[in-house]
Amino acid sequence: MIDFAILKEISTKTPSKIVLLVFDGLGGLPHPETGKTELESARKPNLDRLAAEGICGLSDPVGPGITPGSGPGHLSLFGYDPIKSLVGRGVLEALGVDFDLQEGDVAARCNYCTVDKNGIITDRRAGRIPTERNAELCAKLKKIKLDGINIFILPGKEHRFAVVFRGDGLRGEVADTDPQKSGIAPKAAVALTPYAGKTASVINEFIAKARSVLADSHPANMILLRGISQRPQLPKMSEIFKLNPAAIATYPMYRGLARLVGMTILRTGSTFSDELDTLAGNWNNHDFFFVHIKYTDSSGEDGDFDRKVRVIEEADALLPKLAGLKPDVLAVTGDHSTPALLKGHSWHPVPILINAKYCRTDEVKEFSEKACVSGGLGRIRGTDIMPLAMANALKLDKFGA
Amino acid sequence: MIDFAILKEISTKTPSKIVLLVFDGLGGLPHPETGKTELESARKPNLDRLAAEGICGLSDPVGPGITPGSGPGHLSLFGYDPIKSLVGRGVLEALGVDFDLQEGDVAARCNYCTVDKNGIITDRRAGRIPTERNAELCAKLKKIKLDGINIFILPGKEHRFAVVFRGDGLRGEVADTDPQKSGIAPKAAVALTPYAGKTASVINEFIAKARSVLADSHPANMILLRGISQRPQLPKMSEIFKLNPAAIATYPMYRGLARLVGMTILRTGSTFSDELDTLAGNWNNHDFFFVHIKYTDSSGEDGDFDRKVRVIEEADALLPKLAGLKPDVLAVTGDHSTPALLKGHSWHPVPILINAKYCRTDEVKEFSEKACVSGGLGRIRGTDIMPLAMANALKLDKFGA
Repeated sequence: MIDFAILKEISTKTPSKIVLLVFDGLGGLPHPETGKTELESARKPNLDRLAAEGICGLSDPVGPGITPGSGPGHLSLFGYDPIKSLVGRGVLEALGVDFDLQEGDVAARCNYCTVDKNGIITDRRAGRIPTERNAELCAKLKKIKLDGINIFILPGKEHRFAVVFRGDGLRGEVADTDPQKSGIAPKAAVALTPYAGKTASVINEFIAKARSVLADSHPANMILLRGISQRPQLPKMSEIFKLNPAAIATYPMYRGLARLVGMTILRTGSTFSDELDTLAGNWNNHDFFFVHIKYTDSSGEDGDFDRKVRVIEEADALLPKLAGLKPDVLAVTGDHSTPALLKGHSWHPVPILINAKYCRTDEVKEFSEKACVSGGLGRIRGTDIMPLAMANALKLDKFGA
Repeated sequence: MIDFAILKEISTKTPSKIVLLVFDGLGGLPHPETGKTELESARKPNLDRLAAEGICGLSDPVGPGITPGSGPGHLSLFGYDPIKSLVGRGVLEALGVDFDLQEGDVAARCNYCTVDKNGIITDRRAGRIPTERNAELCAKLKKIKLDGINIFILPGKEHRFAVVFRGDGLRGEVADTDPQKSGIAPKAAVALTPYAGKTASVINEFIAKARSVLADSHPANMILLRGISQRPQLPKMSEIFKLNPAAIATYPMYRGLARLVGMTILRTGSTFSDELDTLAGNWNNHDFFFVHIKYTDSSGEDGDFDRKVRVIEEADALLPKLAGLKPDVLAVTGDHSTPALLKGHSWHPVPILINAKYCRTDEVKEFSEKACVSGGLGRIRGTDIMPLAMANALKLDKFGA
């Protein structure tokens, strides 16, 4: 990928507008009966027209064969090296509940678990306690105090929650306390670098207090931490690309990822139609919009092929609303593939289309995995998308004399 | 790209001959009326035959979305990382007038400008004085002497000229004196590294003397310097590829870029026909020839779609002369795209064809942007072209046991 130092040098501020429309988990695999993927099965005249007028291709968010998580998938789309800009599990969890994670905060993903009287784990998930019970226990944990440290307890579903530690000199380089199996005791928090000693102590102190708070809460009588991490220090998109970027997403995790790169988060409702209203309402205030559609991914994760087809069709039907705003560049893609057949993220490259005045159109007439193979973009990396969008918006000067 | 250390190890000297034919600014964009690019509009039976018999693809000189200057575009074609091998504006200017820039020389691009009695810039271009006046003033500047430093004044057009300083211990890391706006005084030359202090002093001394020489030459009564730079230290193509390379180019800048990588510069006339005569006349003396056609770029820069088409057609008509020499490898491409529609360099990938005995031909029957999308080379980087040409010339040994 092109170095940020170079992108900073050649990026220019112009009035042109870019929309990056992300169908989460867009790519799929052929249905065994029809031989067509979700995208190929959907009736989507608007996406097909955008593809026919634009230039298409396939994108590997991280690299061929690599299945990206949501963090790497999105950071790559935003133009950031997804390997160097790794987002820890704890951070992602905090972002996922809209927690406003500050620089220096240390976040961890936690499980309630069951330990026996000798402290040996008998159930890593505490029998998947009900979410309401989780909330009650989190209310107890919130009362724990540590000297000079603010603790934020973020309840989740069933046995899951997150914790954030805020205080001077904290670091994310601490190993998991979750041993990933039962029959042994939870590990102590261990610093992975000489700088994280204080953090390991803070965490161990917190765990000790949590253990005594939870002593009578069988089966949820202990906690396990993993993915202990800090938010990566990323330069803002405004610095690299001289953009004034905004994010429109119905799910908190994607707002959180957008916040990591300095996007303004626009309040929106829960549907794509709401998101498009938000886009229209803020059209004059920004020159870059990241718009996120969640339900392609969640239907894929559920293995619901037909629902994923419907999500695409419903979004397609609303696209004229977006096209009516006449963005100078409209890029449509996904952060990774989520084939219903695999019920999860996959390594398959993601279809991408770029529709713009000077995009040099190709022969692709349909937005689909198969058609995109012969697109004019070829097979690109996710990190190429931002430079391509910027170039098509005439926002990149010549490199070198 | 493949490391030079590896290329050095596997390159072998053989009698086979490679011709790299570069149509400057080859790639284009479709004409709004016909939907065909310049290349697609041109009648070019010879290029089409070479493409049909050969293997085609698209090349990004620097990377997707990046619009290359002439320097990065050509260095990439010669196999050099265009980001690490950056050529400064001053160096390019000196190369552009065929100045034989030595290692250690410091070159700058200069403007004559107008300053008022308080030294404030009132016109950064001195009213674009006539080129003849420029020559007279440059003759005066040539008389300036500095201790231990040779000064070369290279007159240009209108208000532009270049200066080269030659002497011990000079460095290129000096900031522009051109403030890029009027209403303020020219900046003093400031060293950007601790090693460039002497150079900044030399430049400031030169500027002071120039100012007194020009005192009565209103409106050209002062000078501004920018792009202060030294030629990059590049290993020669003879070292990396074991080639004895020669350059045939009608414009000095491209001869200069070829000189940077150690090519022998062959004297030639001003037309492609002259260049082909030069090629034929030197056929036995070299095993690699870089042949440069300038007018595809200049017609594109002028926004003259039809002229660009004609340049391609005229060159095509002469190609049998080249093919008659039976090069073992003929690679035809551009250093970047220059669509007439954009009147300038652009980011669009450049068509490439490689015609060689063992190239493994593809289904492409026509040399065009659209056809090359489905070529057997796929979408490659500019720096891949030299290794591919070398391989097709059977000049690269196996890598590793």
